[in-house]
Amino acid sequence: MNLYDATVPIFTKHLNSVNKWLDQAAAHAEARKFDVETLLQARLAPDQYPLVRQLQAACDQAKYTCAYLTGKTPPSHPDTEKTIAEVRARLKTVVDYLATFKREDFNGAEERACKASWMPAPLRGGDYLDHLALPNFHFHLTTAYAILRHNGVDLGKSHYVVELPFGKA
Amino acid sequence: MNLYDATVPIFTKHLNSVNKWLDQAAAHAEARKFDVETLLQARLAPDQYPLVRQLQAACDQAKYTCAYLTGKTPPSHPDTEKTIAEVRARLKTVVDYLATFKREDFNGAEERACKASWMPAPLRGGDYLDHLALPNFHFHLTTAYAILRHNGVDLGKSHYVVELPFGKA
Repeated sequence: MNLYDATVPIFTKHLNSVNKWLDQAAAHAEARKFDVETLLQARLAPDQYPLVRQLQAACDQAKYTCAYLTGKTPPSHPDTEKTIAEVRARLKTVVDYLATFKREDFNGAEERACKASWMPAPLRGGDYLDHLALPNFHFHLTTAYAILRHNGVDLGKSHYVVELPFGKA
Repeated sequence: MNLYDATVPIFTKHLNSVNKWLDQAAAHAEARKFDVETLLQARLAPDQYPLVRQLQAACDQAKYTCAYLTGKTPPSHPDTEKTIAEVRARLKTVVDYLATFKREDFNGAEERACKASWMPAPLRGGDYLDHLALPNFHFHLTTAYAILRHNGVDLGKSHYVVELPFGKA
């Protein structure tokens, strides 16, 4: 198994799907006559990140995971987004970055030492992916989804679990 | 890479961590003088599963994934839980089931055809894990966490991303 399969296409499709969530949010705001941009500051608890920060965090998880697993230096993406258009641009920036990775970049990734700045020590690449990166990515993305659901946006599970690759088994 | 590493220990630790969330929920209910059991029916949107069903779904994802990837027949766990004690018992039942799996059970799992009853066709094992099982597991578990957070339970990210295996890189 090459860890490319568990990262680049997965992060890419999930981040792309957020654009559809934002389309649904816009339709809901239009129908209810409120400014869709207010949703970016919506949160489920006062001491929890709002929607915009959840999406920025998901973007960062995707970016850092692919960089660390392949020994590359991740680009800096300051969390400056204030509008949905800017969030869409951030998503595209990260998806474009993910597209620069090749399968062979991930050769040996499972045993590569991966260390984010906040970590007291490195993790094995495989452990970084299984124990930290994937839980964290889905944590932030699902929380973003939950914030939109809680605010009445018309979303269902099929907006989260997307593009299943049938026909290869 | 053996898919055991990405499944059995991951599902086990995350399901075990729910017991700590429920401890925190009990403490919150005690402090605020409400019946903690009411949280089992809390939800973030009227057309979304409540907490109890989110946790049942996370349990099922763990169970089915390990069974399908190893060609075993999963046990049936009817969704009959009505109390937090029963939810804790369900979590233990699944964690005990996960403990019956050995690493060698997952030999060849990546290429094994996996098909849940609702699926139109099987998925390759590796794709089943990356595209369906892990997103779905974390989707339900994070939503359960979000329901508790939204209801004021004292939880933070360190209750979700747990037990990082430092010292192996």
